[in-house]
Amino acid sequence: MNTRNAVVITAEPGTPFATITREVDAPPADVYRAYTEPDLLVQWLGPRGLVMELGDYDVRPGGKWSYTHRDPSGMAFGFRGVFHSVTPGEQLVQTFEFDGAAGHVCLERVDLADLGGRTRITVFDVFQSVEDRDAMLASGMEDGLTDSYERMEELLGVAAQ
Amino acid sequence: MNTRNAVVITAEPGTPFATITREVDAPPADVYRAYTEPDLLVQWLGPRGLVMELGDYDVRPGGKWSYTHRDPSGMAFGFRGVFHSVTPGEQLVQTFEFDGAAGHVCLERVDLADLGGRTRITVFDVFQSVEDRDAMLASGMEDGLTDSYERMEELLGVAAQ
Repeated sequence: MNTRNAVVITAEPGTPFATITREVDAPPADVYRAYTEPDLLVQWLGPRGLVMELGDYDVRPGGKWSYTHRDPSGMAFGFRGVFHSVTPGEQLVQTFEFDGAAGHVCLERVDLADLGGRTRITVFDVFQSVEDRDAMLASGMEDGLTDSYERMEELLGVAAQ
Repeated sequence: MNTRNAVVITAEPGTPFATITREVDAPPADVYRAYTEPDLLVQWLGPRGLVMELGDYDVRPGGKWSYTHRDPSGMAFGFRGVFHSVTPGEQLVQTFEFDGAAGHVCLERVDLADLGGRTRITVFDVFQSVEDRDAMLASGMEDGLTDSYERMEELLGVAAQ
């Protein structure tokens, strides 16, 4: 288990913002590939125990993305959005909507900062209301993120600390 | 001059939200056409005296849009974004970025409510910071909106009140 690289969620009360940071012992180019190559993405994004089915995943400005996470009982959780901008190796800006809360859209920016062979991932989310942000925080998001980034490290061959 | 249908901007201090409402004496189907048909859009969107050049305008989920407003001196103001969702006659959800403030993206939802042959347009914007929202409010946005909706009414053949 990698204990150095913890997920940190910053969400000031009463605002619609959430910032998630996670450092990864892999260079930005590898992290970017994990985010943007469909065959890699399905191997890490989401909590352990859920299977990810990718729909659209068109990484370019205006490209659509969608995926469904299925748990062993068959429960399905669908997500969709579009890419607003794509800066290879550095940044993705996209919309995000959970089918279970249709009509509630989030704007998300993912920044990859080069720490010299390591990467700081910063995910900045802005929601359409404080309530939308709080609902996302209450949804068990932190456990899913912890699993996701550990799985990304396993995928990228990062040694456990 | 139509004085009944004023632009109302609601922007609570210290939040990244802005809501713009404007009633128009035309049915939602006509207002939706004005928003989504390129040859109509260029005739009303923006302040009087500026010429609008449309780039992309692909009204579908994942479709890109871009346009440039030019003033008589040749100054150009470019804007771009992507459509997240499109509900014909009712709603558009899109991203919005001003080239002059590149990297600062807004998420915008446009709702058309049927008031019985008239339409209430509600534009709800959420910005990535309170500062971004305040900068937009300070940019002379209200004058541009006032002109825009008056021009839309002229285009739709709405009689002056």
